[in-house]
Amino acid sequence: MTELQKMGKKAKEAAEKLACAGNLKDKALLAMAAAIEEKEEEILRANEEDLQAAREGGMKPSLLDRLALNHSRIASMAEGIRQVAAQQDPVGEILEGSVRPNGMRIRRVRVPLGVVGIIYEARPNVTADAAALCLKAGNAVILRGGKEAIRSNSAILDIMANAAQKAGLPDGSMQLVRDTSRESSREMMGLTGYLDVLIPRGGAGLIRAVVEGAKVPVIETGVGNCHLFIDESADEAMAVEIAYNGKTSRPSVCNALEKVLIHEKIAESLLPKLAERLSEKNVEFHCCEKSLNILQKAGFQAKLANDEDWDTEYLDYILGIRVVRDLEEALSHIRAHSSGHSECIVTKDYANAAAFTERVDSAAVYVNCSTRFTDGGEFGLGAEIGISTQKLHARGPMGVRELTSSKFIIEGSGQVR
Amino acid sequence: MTELQKMGKKAKEAAEKLACAGNLKDKALLAMAAAIEEKEEEILRANEEDLQAAREGGMKPSLLDRLALNHSRIASMAEGIRQVAAQQDPVGEILEGSVRPNGMRIRRVRVPLGVVGIIYEARPNVTADAAALCLKAGNAVILRGGKEAIRSNSAILDIMANAAQKAGLPDGSMQLVRDTSRESSREMMGLTGYLDVLIPRGGAGLIRAVVEGAKVPVIETGVGNCHLFIDESADEAMAVEIAYNGKTSRPSVCNALEKVLIHEKIAESLLPKLAERLSEKNVEFHCCEKSLNILQKAGFQAKLANDEDWDTEYLDYILGIRVVRDLEEALSHIRAHSSGHSECIVTKDYANAAAFTERVDSAAVYVNCSTRFTDGGEFGLGAEIGISTQKLHARGPMGVRELTSSKFIIEGSGQVR
Repeated sequence: MTELQKMGKKAKEAAEKLACAGNLKDKALLAMAAAIEEKEEEILRANEEDLQAAREGGMKPSLLDRLALNHSRIASMAEGIRQVAAQQDPVGEILEGSVRPNGMRIRRVRVPLGVVGIIYEARPNVTADAAALCLKAGNAVILRGGKEAIRSNSAILDIMANAAQKAGLPDGSMQLVRDTSRESSREMMGLTGYLDVLIPRGGAGLIRAVVEGAKVPVIETGVGNCHLFIDESADEAMAVEIAYNGKTSRPSVCNALEKVLIHEKIAESLLPKLAERLSEKNVEFHCCEKSLNILQKAGFQAKLANDEDWDTEYLDYILGIRVVRDLEEALSHIRAHSSGHSECIVTKDYANAAAFTERVDSAAVYVNCSTRFTDGGEFGLGAEIGISTQKLHARGPMGVRELTSSKFIIEGSGQVR
Repeated sequence: MTELQKMGKKAKEAAEKLACAGNLKDKALLAMAAAIEEKEEEILRANEEDLQAAREGGMKPSLLDRLALNHSRIASMAEGIRQVAAQQDPVGEILEGSVRPNGMRIRRVRVPLGVVGIIYEARPNVTADAAALCLKAGNAVILRGGKEAIRSNSAILDIMANAAQKAGLPDGSMQLVRDTSRESSREMMGLTGYLDVLIPRGGAGLIRAVVEGAKVPVIETGVGNCHLFIDESADEAMAVEIAYNGKTSRPSVCNALEKVLIHEKIAESLLPKLAERLSEKNVEFHCCEKSLNILQKAGFQAKLANDEDWDTEYLDYILGIRVVRDLEEALSHIRAHSSGHSECIVTKDYANAAAFTERVDSAAVYVNCSTRFTDGGEFGLGAEIGISTQKLHARGPMGVRELTSSKFIIEGSGQVR
């Protein structure tokens, strides 16, 4: 048995107990939150070692910032765990039920998934978030974070696991893969018989590797090539503000806006206003020929988009702009290039709003508001483990509920078929 | 572009229209049923060619029977399609919704999965069943049946696709892969970007190959190593009848009973009665040492089970029997060997019934009735596309509803974040 298989076995055994752990889970979550605050120094020390190594390795400042912990970040990790504890327990909910004609009583009941695997990249707070969400739903979790954060992740995990065990949860409820080589990641993707689901959290490269390489069930998350279609009838000021918010409020996240499609009848009037507002944040424009002409005539700098642009999630102060003939052309552009995350129409036209929401095949479809709202908290679902861009099992923000499955329980008095 | 990619592209285009097809789908389903009845002779001719080739190839009589069509089987294929047409349309159902504090109106709406792929083995009626269920849920479907049934499947598919198109559905709504080589199956497993889900229907070997080989999301179906635990307090006559029904009413299906675990305190009295009833159908017993002793002392033929027995889905008139110390030992045997399909306890003890249903981690958990009920029709879900033994997306019998996904629609008045 390999190290990872041993972890899988331990997790499976823990999962059986976690499935019936009831409010012991909340007790453990509160103890985990308290322990993280109490042992802040220990975590900061480990984090400093990670940062040191990363600096020596020449890590970019933006990535260093994602890796760094401090008092307030640790406090919000603990606060996040407490919020998860305060949520309703999804396990045991009766989803449907009936009495069959032969007298059998049948009910479908919500149960945990079992053992959840998470492969993620730099940010150490994911260790706390993911463990808390998985635990709340009654799952054992095997975490495999990035090499850069291994010391921070180990410290956080050890503190949490210790507190959880003291509170009465089984050993193996939450485990961290300490071997951060590529091999451990590949082995995790093939951990059939132990992992009920594997969720990758990170960049497009990581996600593609997991989706293509895994033999266990995977939930694809995160890539967001999000579109805004500004219809002929749009309120111009509203369209500009929604584009500005979508592109510039936090360009590095998956619900950030990446492309604007604009109706040809409104393009000449609206594009300069849009460009002016976005220029406040020095946004770069990658344009189709028509929009390039309009922007250049109005005195803005812009460059011609190439074919790759339309499929690219920039995650940066760059916006792709294309003039379209009508709603149909916008829909077919979105169909061809969207990653199925979030798309928006700004319009005053009732029929166009209805057609857009009905026909765009994405996890979240917006009318007259920013794509930046695609988020478990904003949707009222509580903390999220990620945003699913696939259609199986879960679509859009995934909270505690999406970390569960169901089973049928059938009670009878000797019925045979 | 390969042939299969072209089919994928066509299916994707059809799927967009099918998602908004409304009751045109039912019109098409009724036309398909009528066409199948009308063109019965054409189907029978094609089936006769398949049978001829199979006989020449030396196919076993039981498999020849599964391949064979006749008037009544074709009539029930048509009837099955009509029943699917009569079901409620799942698409458009609002699953939840609320108004957010900032005034955005958010709702989660049921939508089709998109393009469903099905890989299946010999029985040609799956062609009609699967196409009807996928269509009802608004999906385009790509079917890939077995080589043995290719002529029958082609005839059925052509007749249905023709009728559906005449009724107004888009070309590409249902397609059959005519190349039945291993390569076509392998290519289908990797049809990323076209298939939203792939469902294998057939034997354990096929299912394992798809689960391990696929890059697209898969729903694992069907393997059922189903257990019956006869508790100390069981009603003996009830236990015998439930075992008899589970094992002998249709041994070749996945919800058939494969193993009996029996409490040691009731084994001596009950096992001979059980063996006598099952001997009416010449069931073979593969026993642990204790049960072997009891049966041999009582004059029954039986053989010692080997390690493999406990993990084997016999699909035959064979039953594994093991004496266990108590409920705990039964639970741990099930945890180690079950395929997660259906398990049953026969007991009069309230606490044991509750512990069994809570702790057994299978799609269907029974108290005092036969595992043979695990079936979409029997559960009141309508026709089924298969029985999921995984925990992601769907678990247990999958009907039309399990062939759908959902999306969030968010309407606002200029909200930004």
